Amino acid sequence: MITLIELLYYAHNYMKIFDLSIDSLIRLALAEDIGSGDKTTGLLVDGQARGRARVIAKEDLVAAGFVPFERVFAFLSASVVCRFLKEEGSVVLKGETLAELDGPFATLLTGERTALNFMQRLCGIATLTRQYAEKLKPYKAVLLDTRKTTPGWRVLEKEAVRYGGGTNHRMGLFDALLIKENHIAACGGITAAVAKARSQLSPLLSVEVEVRNFSELQEALAASPDVIMLDNMSLEDMKKAAELTSGRVPLEASGNVTLDTLAAIAKTGVDFISSGALTHSARAVDISMLIEKI
Amino acid sequence: MITLIELLYYAHNYMKIFDLSIDSLIRLALAEDIGSGDKTTGLLVDGQARGRARVIAKEDLVAAGFVPFERVFAFLSASVVCRFLKEEGSVVLKGETLAELDGPFATLLTGERTALNFMQRLCGIATLTRQYAEKLKPYKAVLLDTRKTTPGWRVLEKEAVRYGGGTNHRMGLFDALLIKENHIAACGGITAAVAKARSQLSPLLSVEVEVRNFSELQEALAASPDVIMLDNMSLEDMKKAAELTSGRVPLEASGNVTLDTLAAIAKTGVDFISSGALTHSARAVDISMLIEKI
Amino acid sequence: MITLIELLYYAHNYMKIFDLSIDSLIRLALAEDIGSGDKTTGLLVDGQARGRARVIAKEDLVAAGFVPFERVFAFLSASVVCRFLKEEGSVVLKGETLAELDGPFATLLTGERTALNFMQRLCGIATLTRQYAEKLKPYKAVLLDTRKTTPGWRVLEKEAVRYGGGTNHRMGLFDALLIKENHIAACGGITAAVAKARSQLSPLLSVEVEVRNFSELQEALAASPDVIMLDNMSLEDMKKAAELTSGRVPLEASGNVTLDTLAAIAKTGVDFISSGALTHSARAVDISMLIEKI
Amino acid sequence: MITLIELLYYAHNYMKIFDLSIDSLIRLALAEDIGSGDKTTGLLVDGQARGRARVIAKEDLVAAGFVPFERVFAFLSASVVCRFLKEEGSVVLKGETLAELDGPFATLLTGERTALNFMQRLCGIATLTRQYAEKLKPYKAVLLDTRKTTPGWRVLEKEAVRYGGGTNHRMGLFDALLIKENHIAACGGITAAVAKARSQLSPLLSVEVEVRNFSELQEALAASPDVIMLDNMSLEDMKKAAELTSGRVPLEASGNVTLDTLAAIAKTGVDFISSGALTHSARAVDISMLIEKI
Amino acid sequence: MITLIELLYYAHNYMKIFDLSIDSLIRLALAEDIGSGDKTTGLLVDGQARGRARVIAKEDLVAAGFVPFERVFAFLSASVVCRFLKEEGSVVLKGETLAELDGPFATLLTGERTALNFMQRLCGIATLTRQYAEKLKPYKAVLLDTRKTTPGWRVLEKEAVRYGGGTNHRMGLFDALLIKENHIAACGGITAAVAKARSQLSPLLSVEVEVRNFSELQEALAASPDVIMLDNMSLEDMKKAAELTSGRVPLEASGNVTLDTLAAIAKTGVDFISSGALTHSARAVDISMLIEKI
Amino acid sequence: MITLIELLYYAHNYMKIFDLSIDSLIRLALAEDIGSGDKTTGLLVDGQARGRARVIAKEDLVAAGFVPFERVFAFLSASVVCRFLKEEGSVVLKGETLAELDGPFATLLTGERTALNFMQRLCGIATLTRQYAEKLKPYKAVLLDTRKTTPGWRVLEKEAVRYGGGTNHRMGLFDALLIKENHIAACGGITAAVAKARSQLSPLLSVEVEVRNFSELQEALAASPDVIMLDNMSLEDMKKAAELTSGRVPLEASGNVTLDTLAAIAKTGVDFISSGALTHSARAVDISMLIEKI
Repeated sequence: MITLIELLYYAHNYMKIFDLSIDSLIRLALAEDIGSGDKTTGLLVDGQARGRARVIAKEDLVAAGFVPFERVFAFLSASVVCRFLKEEGSVVLKGETLAELDGPFATLLTGERTALNFMQRLCGIATLTRQYAEKLKPYKAVLLDTRKTTPGWRVLEKEAVRYGGGTNHRMGLFDALLIKENHIAACGGITAAVAKARSQLSPLLSVEVEVRNFSELQEALAASPDVIMLDNMSLEDMKKAAELTSGRVPLEASGNVTLDTLAAIAKTGVDFISSGALTHSARAVDISMLIEKI
Repeated sequence: MITLIELLYYAHNYMKIFDLSIDSLIRLALAEDIGSGDKTTGLLVDGQARGRARVIAKEDLVAAGFVPFERVFAFLSASVVCRFLKEEGSVVLKGETLAELDGPFATLLTGERTALNFMQRLCGIATLTRQYAEKLKPYKAVLLDTRKTTPGWRVLEKEAVRYGGGTNHRMGLFDALLIKENHIAACGGITAAVAKARSQLSPLLSVEVEVRNFSELQEALAASPDVIMLDNMSLEDMKKAAELTSGRVPLEASGNVTLDTLAAIAKTGVDFISSGALTHSARAVDISMLIEKI
Repeated sequence: MITLIELLYYAHNYMKIFDLSIDSLIRLALAEDIGSGDKTTGLLVDGQARGRARVIAKEDLVAAGFVPFERVFAFLSASVVCRFLKEEGSVVLKGETLAELDGPFATLLTGERTALNFMQRLCGIATLTRQYAEKLKPYKAVLLDTRKTTPGWRVLEKEAVRYGGGTNHRMGLFDALLIKENHIAACGGITAAVAKARSQLSPLLSVEVEVRNFSELQEALAASPDVIMLDNMSLEDMKKAAELTSGRVPLEASGNVTLDTLAAIAKTGVDFISSGALTHSARAVDISMLIEKI
Repeated sequence: MITLIELLYYAHNYMKIFDLSIDSLIRLALAEDIGSGDKTTGLLVDGQARGRARVIAKEDLVAAGFVPFERVFAFLSASVVCRFLKEEGSVVLKGETLAELDGPFATLLTGERTALNFMQRLCGIATLTRQYAEKLKPYKAVLLDTRKTTPGWRVLEKEAVRYGGGTNHRMGLFDALLIKENHIAACGGITAAVAKARSQLSPLLSVEVEVRNFSELQEALAASPDVIMLDNMSLEDMKKAAELTSGRVPLEASGNVTLDTLAAIAKTGVDFISSGALTHSARAVDISMLIEKI
Repeated sequence: MITLIELLYYAHNYMKIFDLSIDSLIRLALAEDIGSGDKTTGLLVDGQARGRARVIAKEDLVAAGFVPFERVFAFLSASVVCRFLKEEGSVVLKGETLAELDGPFATLLTGERTALNFMQRLCGIATLTRQYAEKLKPYKAVLLDTRKTTPGWRVLEKEAVRYGGGTNHRMGLFDALLIKENHIAACGGITAAVAKARSQLSPLLSVEVEVRNFSELQEALAASPDVIMLDNMSLEDMKKAAELTSGRVPLEASGNVTLDTLAAIAKTGVDFISSGALTHSARAVDISMLIEKI
Repeated sequence: MITLIELLYYAHNYMKIFDLSIDSLIRLALAEDIGSGDKTTGLLVDGQARGRARVIAKEDLVAAGFVPFERVFAFLSASVVCRFLKEEGSVVLKGETLAELDGPFATLLTGERTALNFMQRLCGIATLTRQYAEKLKPYKAVLLDTRKTTPGWRVLEKEAVRYGGGTNHRMGLFDALLIKENHIAACGGITAAVAKARSQLSPLLSVEVEVRNFSELQEALAASPDVIMLDNMSLEDMKKAAELTSGRVPLEASGNVTLDTLAAIAKTGVDFISSGALTHSARAVDISMLIEKI
């Protein structure tokens, strides 16, 4: 006889950690799609029937978005079981199966679109990020994302960037300082701004400073922040900045970053290259779900 | 002396209608970006200072997303005043000013990124939609969006589609029936499915049926739903379907819709063409905000 | 040994679908009743004891409201099991048992009133609706509800109407258009209003127009909306309207609908009869719950 | 020139206290009716136009429900001004005006139904309560409500009972003890139950005990709770109970209370008569709102 | 083979009742600590590993706070099992184990601080309360808490007071009346205030009156509230008040209550002594959690 | 005549920034105290009357907690005006006035306790922190708080620490890494743990490592984290650690920190001293509010 202890043990491996930070978004998503009910399925499909589904890549992609995909169904029914056949971060070829689901037939039909809407967007970001990351492989420069994410999706999109091989810049306004032009002006200069920040700051919060030219760079180097951002500099200027800095403070290149310019920017010798396009301009990849009654 | 009545009257013109349906998303967005506080601005900027900002188009675009843009700031401070210089739905040229803001300098800095994240995405959708809509101008076919929207953004994205010249398909699973393959199978055929739906349905809810071939089309025509969707048919088959239908029921083309195929699809004589790309694959347009202390 | 797969399978049949749309109301209801705790039960009842309960009809009624009844207890304890002995929509005679429950004795006592408050009201609506629906049996006219529901209860009350044999009118302001006097005035006439609506509308959203006299009816018929509502017309006028329309557009009778007038209105030949009383003036039926410790 | 101080002073008289406890319900109510938008008004009515409305009693009623009525509009627009011409609790005759509103024309149209749905139900409860209270005027017995309220509406409905001339019983399970049969059984008798409750209880929480016969009444009198409830006793038995008690503990009559039995019950000499029908079976009164564009 | 019935039965003993009233606070607490993720654990700890933990008292204490302690982990993972080795309200000696946990190693690390933050504060309150309660053992006076609790923690802190041997005063402004100086002034005297309150009040809501001197006490005694609070009176005056009252109405001593003054106050003959320090000035006790990977 | 522009300008100075992060806590606090209504004030106080209040320090204290104090009243009424006569962070002497309020008399009475409950706790933390900070003045060591805060109060308490002259350690698990014993074990050593963290981390997230002895310190120094925490070391060992480190990495002393040991710890040469007592064991200071009707 199975003991409860054993049972609980097995259950642990199937139950997924409750993700506090995305549930509000999933609830919004289900509410906006289902509203007062899935009329078509409610009227036409037997509530007792069970179904099975396969999630298929319709083009080559990098897998991501498994957590919200699965939780969409978990919100709709406690009895949907979802098995992922791929790892997040792995390349999935056109025609391959990403996941298999069992559950109430009606639930599979009702949740399909919302679940796919999450996955197709997050795989899209991971896939685009991988293209960027591949270009940077020969260079030391690390690929960063930005705060230019889809409102409500920050944590999900930054995770997809990681699955695509990128690294996350700060999560938001709260976990690191980025001192920009306006902050500098408000303090009367880079030196004063960095000093003021350091004097009041947790010893574990980092400070980055944005510079636009060489005199600002010199002032920033003297203030020794944790990172210096070169804002919209030309390739030539970035190269000169990297030489001038010679490793004393890591440099981040920002602005005009595209797949085409990536290698050239990396060659300037900067340490980080950040791109908003990874999250704000990735197109959705094509994924479909084949559902059948069993 | 100004009377309270006058005052209230004037206030009416400045206060904006509270939009219930997007506030949850804005709250999520602010929470994920601000978290425990905008440390940079909090430490370095005088809380009493006031500022002014201009929102500039960095490329040609179609304006959209004004409501969430403005509400982001409204959440942060009751004293931000936002004047839009363009109409939503109008074309804005590179370099033109979309909006001007007055408010606490710190609030403008804190809200900038989140507000722009909303606007750049929604203008992106309106701009892409307009490109599609322009292509369709010579034809009777109407451009529709789909349910392939960003979870949490349904209402906002569908509004942006309208500003770009598109028309909205159903809002979600609740406001119209779309009887697909699985529903049809569950009822034993199109005829039975439409009949079952009609018999239980509000007289004001519409019914669309998805068909994949001519025998299904024939059966659907006999059942006379409000719309018939031709699912992934070839151009030739769509043309044949339109002839066969000869206006008895409006036809919607779905699948393989791109800017390049749009005109050809329209020429087949269908009444509606729906495209998921409008909402799931529009890139963000480039918009920036120039902030200064006053 | 039971395998986890078997276990999960069995569990599927007991776990109920999580109903997104009513949970907020249930949470409100429990909060307002329980507040800082059920003092009587908390002080006087052993938390470990288990109990059993039967839900008894104290008068003839039509069953409804099972979902919120059950979820009230689900919120209070994961271990309440609820078996319904009747189907929603069926007639239950005085003295018959609607449901049986097992669970913590304290939970049964704490949840009793709130759970019954849901069920007694929803059975009341189903029961009243059935009386109306019975009167309409000999006629083609279909019984509709309205938007005159108890705020917060829309979905639940409309479902109870269906269990009583009625049909739902639109769910809210979002899933169909009902063009009333003020909207018509704002557009300069019925023709203009319908045309404006149709030109911007999803092909799946329906349009109903309210008319008060024959000249409006004529204009409405020419505009061919999906339904025409005859607002507060006399029996004689409704009859004339039905003749005049002769089936071109379905007609809905609205105003002065009572159990007594129902048959007479149906005889005029209208297609739909809508009644706000179904939801706003049904009395609660008498249901009680017998609880015992085991 | 008006000073800001004066301005704020005047504003105080117009602004209404934010009612924490009903906002969740109002938000639910607006969400369920408006969903993704008031399509009719959104498409057909000019958003800049202002309007005026009058709220008219279509039958004699007792006024109630002003707070949720007004807050419905406050949620939709900051610029709706609502003037009530009657006091809550006062009798309003058929044809009289309850309130006048100014605000955006579109907002008045969108909020009308939800606001009236609140008011018509709460006036209905106040009106029914007043009928009951009138019957009790010649007697000392005080009319009480129960916990048989509409889930989510407890505070609102209990307030309406007060406007109708009734008195509130406990608000919920948290603010007083009502020791019923099951609690008594769990403690081994009334004496033990009351003693156990008293020993652990705040000195300010009251204790009521439910009794079904004279031996229980005797035991209860000896335990001296704050109130004794006579559960479903005959008129004769209630009379005997009142004599037997002779004022030592206030008695509450419960069960079979209708407009017809009220006077007879009061004559038995009980101190309180409680009726669930006041809140669970009041019909809505007829109120309409005349809106015009200005 | 274990039957499902057996399984559900066992599960009942492990699953804990869902506590509606503290979940919002726990959610806030987890959100503020975890924010966008536990970076250290997320990067460095294998998500599949399981762990075990022991919760150890680092000083003598009275146990409390088990419910929020356990729910913190329940929010993070469905698979944490928590066994408490002590009863709430019992004395735990330095070095003894309060609880043992099994669960995902990462979850134990992530939840540790938040769970302990709840428990150390609530045990601190129970421990301090016990010190007060011990001092009162020789006397009839009952120890009460106040409304001077930590905002958001009312129910939890009042429960901890009970575990320490105290009794709860009213829970909030809603479950009893406390008529203070300002209320008395607003009504024109104690007599009028008590009369007004009684005339409109539920028969089960109690009334306490605050008095500052003997003339107020006399007036209060004549009005016969349920309790009289002696506000900041000297020991001598309290004694005189108790004699003067001679048990007609219970007296509550309030103000200047410390461990040192407690016995002297009790000796005056008052019935209740209330202390805000129990909840607002208890220091946290020292509790630690030893976690290991298994 | 005052122009609207002027008016809005003035209003800006009175309106306070809406603080997203504490509103949920305030809402909880008001809900738990007010519940179904402030019965005493509601029954006995005229809703139209206006009042005035002064907030008085009853002992010397450091001011803090102004934002939640004011927002409690803002939630209850839009017309309470609150003027603070002191700065947060300044010393206020016994008898001095902290703030003056004008507003509805009833609102002042209803909000008093909750508002004071916030302020007395936060001033208590600022006051205790100042005592600690004063002791450290002669030394270079900076006073830090910890994550041992009251659940739900993290941001508020950390702000109060700053007002008392302390500096904040990390805000939570999300804004810096603190690699502890368990994390080290999971990675197979300090070197591996720091390397793994650095390789995947945002360039702006800092890393602290906890060490318990000199061999761990040596390994940590080689790994060069941003800070090293000396966990529960003796004074002697801390001194030796500081010498051994000689400024290469800042050192944080943790454990056994009290007012009495503070100076001795600072003398060892550590850079930071962190104390949980600042937030988990500060007693509330005594503050009262004098309210009068005007």
